[in-house]
Amino acid sequence: MGLLSEGLTQVLIPVSALVGIGFALLQWFLVSRVKVSTGSYDEHNGYKDRLIGDDQEEGIDDLEVTIKCAEIQNAISLGATSFLFTEYRYLSIFMGVFGAIIFLFLGSVKGFSTKSEPCTYNTGSTCKPALANALFTTVAFLLGALTSTLSGYLGMKIATYANARTTLEARKGVGKAFITAFRSGAVMGFLLAANGLLVLYVSINLFKLYYGDDWEGLYESITGYGLGGSSMALFGRVGGGIYTKAADVGADLVGKVERNIPEDDPRNPAVIADNVGDNVGDIAGMGSDLFGSYAESSCAALFVASISSFGISHDHVAMSYPLIISSMGIVVCLITTLFATDLFEIKKVKEIEPSLKRQLLISTILMTAGIAIVTYFALPSEFTLFNFGTTKTVKSWHLFSCVSIGLWAGLVIGYTTEYYTSNAYSPVRDVADSCRTGAATNVIFGLALGYKSVIVPIFAIAIAIYVSFSLAAMYGIAVAALGMLSTIATGLAIDAYGPISDNAGGIAEMAGMSHEIRERTDALDAAGNTTAAIGKGFAIGSAALVSLALFGAYVSRAGIKSVDVMTPKVFIGLIVGAMLPYWFSAMTMKSVGSAALKMVEEVRRQFNTIPGLMEGTTKPDYATCVKISTDASLREMIPPGALVLVTPLIAGTFFGVETLAGILAGSLVSGVQAGVSEHAKALGPKGSDAHKAAVIGDTIGDPLKDTSGPSLNILIKLMAVESLVFAPFFATHGGLIFKLL
Amino acid sequence: MGLLSEGLTQVLIPVSALVGIGFALLQWFLVSRVKVSTGSYDEHNGYKDRLIGDDQEEGIDDLEVTIKCAEIQNAISLGATSFLFTEYRYLSIFMGVFGAIIFLFLGSVKGFSTKSEPCTYNTGSTCKPALANALFTTVAFLLGALTSTLSGYLGMKIATYANARTTLEARKGVGKAFITAFRSGAVMGFLLAANGLLVLYVSINLFKLYYGDDWEGLYESITGYGLGGSSMALFGRVGGGIYTKAADVGADLVGKVERNIPEDDPRNPAVIADNVGDNVGDIAGMGSDLFGSYAESSCAALFVASISSFGISHDHVAMSYPLIISSMGIVVCLITTLFATDLFEIKKVKEIEPSLKRQLLISTILMTAGIAIVTYFALPSEFTLFNFGTTKTVKSWHLFSCVSIGLWAGLVIGYTTEYYTSNAYSPVRDVADSCRTGAATNVIFGLALGYKSVIVPIFAIAIAIYVSFSLAAMYGIAVAALGMLSTIATGLAIDAYGPISDNAGGIAEMAGMSHEIRERTDALDAAGNTTAAIGKGFAIGSAALVSLALFGAYVSRAGIKSVDVMTPKVFIGLIVGAMLPYWFSAMTMKSVGSAALKMVEEVRRQFNTIPGLMEGTTKPDYATCVKISTDASLREMIPPGALVLVTPLIAGTFFGVETLAGILAGSLVSGVQAGVSEHAKALGPKGSDAHKAAVIGDTIGDPLKDTSGPSLNILIKLMAVESLVFAPFFATHGGLIFKLL
Repeated sequence: MGLLSEGLTQVLIPVSALVGIGFALLQWFLVSRVKVSTGSYDEHNGYKDRLIGDDQEEGIDDLEVTIKCAEIQNAISLGATSFLFTEYRYLSIFMGVFGAIIFLFLGSVKGFSTKSEPCTYNTGSTCKPALANALFTTVAFLLGALTSTLSGYLGMKIATYANARTTLEARKGVGKAFITAFRSGAVMGFLLAANGLLVLYVSINLFKLYYGDDWEGLYESITGYGLGGSSMALFGRVGGGIYTKAADVGADLVGKVERNIPEDDPRNPAVIADNVGDNVGDIAGMGSDLFGSYAESSCAALFVASISSFGISHDHVAMSYPLIISSMGIVVCLITTLFATDLFEIKKVKEIEPSLKRQLLISTILMTAGIAIVTYFALPSEFTLFNFGTTKTVKSWHLFSCVSIGLWAGLVIGYTTEYYTSNAYSPVRDVADSCRTGAATNVIFGLALGYKSVIVPIFAIAIAIYVSFSLAAMYGIAVAALGMLSTIATGLAIDAYGPISDNAGGIAEMAGMSHEIRERTDALDAAGNTTAAIGKGFAIGSAALVSLALFGAYVSRAGIKSVDVMTPKVFIGLIVGAMLPYWFSAMTMKSVGSAALKMVEEVRRQFNTIPGLMEGTTKPDYATCVKISTDASLREMIPPGALVLVTPLIAGTFFGVETLAGILAGSLVSGVQAGVSEHAKALGPKGSDAHKAAVIGDTIGDPLKDTSGPSLNILIKLMAVESLVFAPFFATHGGLIFKLL
Repeated sequence: MGLLSEGLTQVLIPVSALVGIGFALLQWFLVSRVKVSTGSYDEHNGYKDRLIGDDQEEGIDDLEVTIKCAEIQNAISLGATSFLFTEYRYLSIFMGVFGAIIFLFLGSVKGFSTKSEPCTYNTGSTCKPALANALFTTVAFLLGALTSTLSGYLGMKIATYANARTTLEARKGVGKAFITAFRSGAVMGFLLAANGLLVLYVSINLFKLYYGDDWEGLYESITGYGLGGSSMALFGRVGGGIYTKAADVGADLVGKVERNIPEDDPRNPAVIADNVGDNVGDIAGMGSDLFGSYAESSCAALFVASISSFGISHDHVAMSYPLIISSMGIVVCLITTLFATDLFEIKKVKEIEPSLKRQLLISTILMTAGIAIVTYFALPSEFTLFNFGTTKTVKSWHLFSCVSIGLWAGLVIGYTTEYYTSNAYSPVRDVADSCRTGAATNVIFGLALGYKSVIVPIFAIAIAIYVSFSLAAMYGIAVAALGMLSTIATGLAIDAYGPISDNAGGIAEMAGMSHEIRERTDALDAAGNTTAAIGKGFAIGSAALVSLALFGAYVSRAGIKSVDVMTPKVFIGLIVGAMLPYWFSAMTMKSVGSAALKMVEEVRRQFNTIPGLMEGTTKPDYATCVKISTDASLREMIPPGALVLVTPLIAGTFFGVETLAGILAGSLVSGVQAGVSEHAKALGPKGSDAHKAAVIGDTIGDPLKDTSGPSLNILIKLMAVESLVFAPFFATHGGLIFKLL
């Protein structure tokens, strides 16, 4: 047994979750002190902080601009809210249906019997009936789906609350605007991390009221939480991704390339849809996504632990190790945030990116110490894990190494991503340089760069996997994933900062603010693009680890002896699984392409038929463009979503657990490449022909990096967690085709 | 024992190879009857065949045009020959070095001992020393490399011999031009298939003089033949691919997009380099590539058979089954060719594509019967195979099913590829339609289409693998690959037809022939693009099967019990292996991009500084462009080539046989997707803006489909065959890192 008492654990976890929520609310309050709607400035916000650094304040007492910003913010917020509500209405139907499927499939494992059964792993004890597991899994699934929805929704709310405030603060200088955007990102990060932890903690304790000492059934049911979180995330990412990129591509192609008007020009009919898209895609979608990763890695770790000595000897504290790690993560991120908001002050544009990078480094260093503390107090110095039928003796410092290597692999991925996507380094400069010879060479270089950016992250992931796998088998992988995600609050803050700055720039342009302010928001945005890429790097890196952990849990649960590539059932799974990311990408890219095509035609139509639009005397019809994006994303998110959700069901039911294992392994190793490879964004210097080439390159990169790429990490996680949840069914009733042959 | 006698087998194989060579020479003779260099037409070629169908003959007695064609053909042929000779000079050094490595590594397995050893599989017998295997493997490697070189070189020779002849025949109508181009393709196809078979047959019989009854050592050494063929093919594909696409991209971007001059306009300085590129890349590279596949699948089948009951009971006829299948293939393709050249006559443009498709279908149907005959006569009705330590009883009709399913999977892949790349169907039309909204949507649609084109082929490959794997384990996979490649002569004829027509069009344009003739060659070329894509589909499909067979042979030879994904060593191999195709593509695309950039600048420079170039009064400096392509391809083929060749050596030596097995599986399942996915070519209607968008899309697709994509199938095959050749070394001395830890 570890040094920490059970009672203290029961207190520490919810307390740190509540501290996280409190800190998020505090940041929200600080952001709210920037006023957008009234004409009178409060003292602090108005004139007290004049002349910070070398930034020049300007236009801060222009009342008209403030009102215009408020109007635009309102339009964006309304658009985003109405889209999300429509999306959630559709998804609630899906959730109901899929919940019923889970209940029926899992209930049928023992023919809906209400009798208790002997336990599978904890031999000699009695476990709750399969029907109870079916019921509780369904409940956990719905809870996960709800929390995921909440994470996305709250993120969108704070982002649309913060965008105009960032614009207004930009009048006072880059530093002020940065703090506002970053604080808002932090609100999202902390709310998500803390909510995720709290709901999981409460669910486990409530489920325990029924399950009592049957921890096998308890943690098997809890995996539904991960499935719920991830399946909402899939639709959020895909729907939001199609929405944002259809608008973005449409707006850019006509506005920037054909009409030579700047980005976010209010004359562009697609401009509101574009800005709404940033919030529903990059914010809400990404929030759901990272929540899903977090929920799944916790569930994977808990499930594996429950069938190891922790679970069988009912060591409550050691069992809670994954949750205590996450609690420590919240505290560490809280301290880290203070470095950005209070300890260092940003004065120059150049300082933004280093400051965000410093956040990553600080949180990683602090968290390493945090992991050491948690490991020392929570774990017994030596314990037993189950490793596919055999047992393995693990020391507590082994687990410390697993969590830490996941954490540091995340940092390596983050830094590599930054190197390949920041215009401070040669890769992006080379791509920009290639615009001299046109769009085609630009795209060729951009794709090559994207492929190249995979190499170092893959080696980092491979090393993390090897070490944690060797030291603590699947539990090691699961906690490595948790380690990478332990600083999720900081990661999300950095990530969400990007789209908020992007929106702030859009609002500045639309409100007709001065060139100088636009330059400041552009600088924020450029750094934001890089940090958003870093966020995607984390998402895919953690997804690889999480999926492998879930895959391992699935293999254990389905009772598969070995996943031997040299057997036909596994090999065909492997090759078909590796194809799925391409199939999925083909669907989503085609969707973006078709929607963008419609958008381009609508924007062209408006420019051609609405008199006075180019001159700025008439307003464009924003609503039609919003409708095109909305309709396209809601309609087009169904086929790719269905592909991901139905594949494990079909494979498991008809081809059996081995082929499904092959599919999971194949999609994992293939999807993780494709996901990481889409980071590269083609940037170009603003100049006539070369700039147009850059816009074309950018446009081609967009659906790759914002629609297909980020969805692929959900694809691999979701198929793995779904397989795990349905494993009892597949193991009992699956493999129909081979049974018939 | 089968019904066929050993003596008859010994006669049938070389006879059919010689028949193939004879048929190729006959076709060559028929092509040669079209005269390009003299001014006087012979009777047959001149006026006898007037007014065939609805084509109109024109300008056939314009002496000046004929002389001009001869000049251009000469320039292209000289350029291609000089490039290939330079390339081969470099490669001969590489071959020497790599041959030495093979000898040293394999010789060291038993410490260069000259003593005979007990056999590994044929227990109780004595086998030749490892040093002899090292020596004979090296010899086989050099023979494979030489035959591969010869295949590429002869293909290039006939192609550059046929291009101007096709142009001249186009004056007499589409039908005549088609026959000339197709016959020339057939020359290449038959020479390659027959040479490959003959050299292999002779080598085996010569090696047998030393090895006698030690078939284990004999067929282990013979695998060097596959390694030699494939490593030359890699450099041929990569070097040729970079050459042709640098020239093509450079010529298109400046000529078509910036200067609005047509494709292959003689004023374009890169036009000769572009046409040379078609011959060294699409013809010589592809010839080496398919020869490599053929050699490897034969070697894999022979190796697996040699350690099964065929080899241990010294059943010579059954052992020769793979070679007899290939012999039958030559006969079948010979009959098939007559359908295209003699039985049906092409009268209209529309008939070209169906005619080529019919070739595929006819050869497949005839070959199915051929396989049945060969199987009935050559194999005993029941025999024993080794399946990773266990034995498996196989019936002869099982093997018939394996070969046939490979063959028919090839047809499915061919037809799917045709559907996705022919402008007769909706996919390409949709992509063309997307050009209305610019290059960006065009590329997005094109990429999506490319990804989508993977789905059906992957299912076809998966089914073929499942069936042949289940029926006859690794031997089944190897003969399935042979089945797919059995109609290689027809496949290559169809494939080579493409670049020949492409060149013919170029010559027509450069010789200033009439618009109508150019239209005819364009029609041939359009069909040729589709058939070239079909050829690539075959190459990647067969590569998947071949690699798996080689992988299986490697696993057997290295004594690996199971390739369990759920072990850290294998899993890290899997994920890193899946990354290799991306790394490789990044390298080759960057190379094409950089070379194209230089080419664009040179072409722009010539247009800007050479007075009278645009007006056509001065000749451009073709030589500088040729030099840019040559230098770039020779310099840039080294790093990607090294990546592929060095990876198995490093992985096997330092990480051991399991990690290497993971790498092979990972690169196989990942590379086969990427390879198949690059088929799509963005076509567009000729019109101002939309056409420019199409050219940009085409340009982006070019390096994917002609450089990276086709090389990936060599990557997966080559790593597998290299691992197999070095397996004895890795099994004895490999895994240094894990031994140290």
